[in-house]
Amino acid sequence: MSKGITGKETDYSAWYNELILKSELADYAPVKGCMVIRPHGYAIWEKMRDALDVMFKATGHENAYFPMLIPESFIKKEAEHVKGFSPELAVVTHGGGKELEEPLILRPTSETIIWSMYKDWIHSYRDLPLLINQWANIIRWEMRTRLFLRTTEFLWQEGHTAHATAEEAEEETLRMLNVYKTFTEEFMAMPVLTGKKSESQKFAGAVATYAIEAMMGDKKALQAGTSHYLGQNFAKAFDVKFQSEENKEEYVYATSWGVSTRLIGALVMTHSDNKGLVLPPKLSPFELIIIPIWKSDEEETEVREFLGKIEGSLKSAGVTYKVDDRKNYTPGWKFNEWELKGIPLRIEVGPRDVKENQLVMVRRDLSEKVIKPVEGIGEESRKILDTIQKDLFEKAKAFMADNTKKISSYDDFKEFYKSGGGFAESHWCGSPECEQEVQEETKATIRVIPFEQPGEKGSCIKCGKESETMVVFAKSY
Amino acid sequence: MSKGITGKETDYSAWYNELILKSELADYAPVKGCMVIRPHGYAIWEKMRDALDVMFKATGHENAYFPMLIPESFIKKEAEHVKGFSPELAVVTHGGGKELEEPLILRPTSETIIWSMYKDWIHSYRDLPLLINQWANIIRWEMRTRLFLRTTEFLWQEGHTAHATAEEAEEETLRMLNVYKTFTEEFMAMPVLTGKKSESQKFAGAVATYAIEAMMGDKKALQAGTSHYLGQNFAKAFDVKFQSEENKEEYVYATSWGVSTRLIGALVMTHSDNKGLVLPPKLSPFELIIIPIWKSDEEETEVREFLGKIEGSLKSAGVTYKVDDRKNYTPGWKFNEWELKGIPLRIEVGPRDVKENQLVMVRRDLSEKVIKPVEGIGEESRKILDTIQKDLFEKAKAFMADNTKKISSYDDFKEFYKSGGGFAESHWCGSPECEQEVQEETKATIRVIPFEQPGEKGSCIKCGKESETMVVFAKSY
Repeated sequence: MSKGITGKETDYSAWYNELILKSELADYAPVKGCMVIRPHGYAIWEKMRDALDVMFKATGHENAYFPMLIPESFIKKEAEHVKGFSPELAVVTHGGGKELEEPLILRPTSETIIWSMYKDWIHSYRDLPLLINQWANIIRWEMRTRLFLRTTEFLWQEGHTAHATAEEAEEETLRMLNVYKTFTEEFMAMPVLTGKKSESQKFAGAVATYAIEAMMGDKKALQAGTSHYLGQNFAKAFDVKFQSEENKEEYVYATSWGVSTRLIGALVMTHSDNKGLVLPPKLSPFELIIIPIWKSDEEETEVREFLGKIEGSLKSAGVTYKVDDRKNYTPGWKFNEWELKGIPLRIEVGPRDVKENQLVMVRRDLSEKVIKPVEGIGEESRKILDTIQKDLFEKAKAFMADNTKKISSYDDFKEFYKSGGGFAESHWCGSPECEQEVQEETKATIRVIPFEQPGEKGSCIKCGKESETMVVFAKSY
Repeated sequence: MSKGITGKETDYSAWYNELILKSELADYAPVKGCMVIRPHGYAIWEKMRDALDVMFKATGHENAYFPMLIPESFIKKEAEHVKGFSPELAVVTHGGGKELEEPLILRPTSETIIWSMYKDWIHSYRDLPLLINQWANIIRWEMRTRLFLRTTEFLWQEGHTAHATAEEAEEETLRMLNVYKTFTEEFMAMPVLTGKKSESQKFAGAVATYAIEAMMGDKKALQAGTSHYLGQNFAKAFDVKFQSEENKEEYVYATSWGVSTRLIGALVMTHSDNKGLVLPPKLSPFELIIIPIWKSDEEETEVREFLGKIEGSLKSAGVTYKVDDRKNYTPGWKFNEWELKGIPLRIEVGPRDVKENQLVMVRRDLSEKVIKPVEGIGEESRKILDTIQKDLFEKAKAFMADNTKKISSYDDFKEFYKSGGGFAESHWCGSPECEQEVQEETKATIRVIPFEQPGEKGSCIKCGKESETMVVFAKSY
């Protein structure tokens, strides 16, 4: 029940955790840092997975499955990679009652095991490009965990592609970043910034990392997906060469890209309110909840018959719905329950509605009751659902715009992050020292170096040196 | 290329392994006993998963995800369970660079972690039944592994349900066994026997285990799926009680049931031949392969235009297909390639066909060429694909019937397993000693105690005592 949830203005972090537990998206598991994704949360993940999977296949990718156990020696083959991931590894030392000769790592990401296989699969330019994606569970030993945002185990997809040229691999890197942007905007109704990460923030083993960044309800940034151009780093570490069309032997070029169950946390923090979740129709486990109301058996018969009409119309309009006709709960309890769970649209129907040939409809995001005729209710619902999807996106977009500021003086910058914060568009000279000092003094980091640059010179927000690069700073998850 | 595959009559096991590697269903991974499921194999798994998932949801189940790491102490809470699984456990002893206080087990199955959560989720009869399924990876440290059939890591689904009464749980156990039977027969075109397992063969922690058993091409049995009635064993181990409608406190009743990527191995061994895989249309990554043939640019233009008609017709009939227009390979090479990969139906189309407004069609399971008019080719293909699906099932059913024998003398029984073998329908007195002696002397085990009994008394195949129970013996995977 929503009365149990702390207000988001009071304590955003408590609001987030309580909301996830009470709406039954997830629960804490008995193992440190692990979570259980409950049916309501998993149904959202299935919708995300299915939508992304269609987009991956439409861009020529196939799914495969690689082992979760990786020999320890593999992780060590790429120098930057091992440096980045060592602190987070979980290690299997015993199997079948015996100590293993070589410890096995639980995959923190699969570049190494996948490139050890690509060595056998790639020989000629005719084997390229190789465009593979994997849906899998990942283990990273995190110190501070948070439901969905950072957990020891999480679910994700990881694309791993191999190409004959650097240009083709770079194109692929950006193509998949754009697929992520399209997905988050069109399905999650969550606007994102796209751009390149600074050197200090890039993936361990990448030549360049690109990201989509979203603004959460507390104005902090969340990295929602990344796409990496890996150059020939993994091909060299695993000796993956191919015979080119010109009959030369060359190392293969690589990309990798991923999004995870973290997106569910982003979804919660982008749209939800103090009454509970607000889910965009395209990712809600179902779009519409019907709550029938009756007091006598006679009324029940009447209302149930009337429901037949409504359901028929919803079905032909392709609206997904459920009828909550449980007898042990009052209508008021059910209203709260489905508001808490974020179902986009509610229909209430009682004996009076039957007489008037109408029904009551409530949008989850607006909470206002409107009366609609039963005739054509399927089409009408579809229209309203489309509007909700659009409105949620526009609202989130306006929120991001309202909380994004061009800032050119460091005093203003510090003040910005002392007060409400948000995204700061500021110039940066490119030096890691300035980047680090800003972080130490304000906790804000460079989220992306946007592709679209204003094209005007400025001065570095920290050192004041002339700069041609505008970057977006924010505090982040 | 199929010329590289050992004949199944020569060495069934070599045929099986080579077929899987060459058709690119899977590959050996660098970790002992693990495999990589390649795109062609994973696409089949996706089809299986999607079909089963629809059936699980239609019977009221929801998906969720539980952690893969299980505290060692959990596994030990159910006495039989720990005894059964101890030899197969992989153990994580280090995380984040430190030794763990309590080692973590990689799930060999999830009863323990799931019932530890059910304790928090189930309080009243109103919380029941709880019908949850999980799609996940599983680790069992196997001594002898075999691609798909027995691997250290495999993919599966595991249903875990909780009920207020024993009757309801038992009903669920059999309902899901039947879902498996429907799936294997209707989608895999693989007939199965259903029945109960003997005490010696049941799941560690179950009251009763039921199974579907199929006959492979070498007449050995393969356990293709199991459904367990767990009684109150796990509820007691994890103290999961509920308030009944009569206000009494009682332990919850449980079931669990699963099928795995092992089914892909079963699919291979049920239908394939010395030329490669034979896939039933309902589980083939796509149903039809089109191979266009041309020698000049002019012919290419002509044939490509003609292809438009064919594709249009296939699309409107909902037939899934691919066009193999790669330029680096000859038509003959492509025929072999797609035969090896088991695509059910092939269309060949060249300049002569364009002139005659026809095409050549070849069923993978029959290999005979027929000429068909282009007009209505979509509908015609759909009809042929339906026929293939049916024919494969009938052929497998006849094979099983031909190799199933009622045997009442132990001499005949021993002779049966010295020669070709198969399924023996024989009487069994019910003693574990007879069961074990038969296994030691013939390697045949009791696969199931069938639900449908002939209803006539007989004598135990081993000791000759009077028996009311007919069982099915076979050598097995």
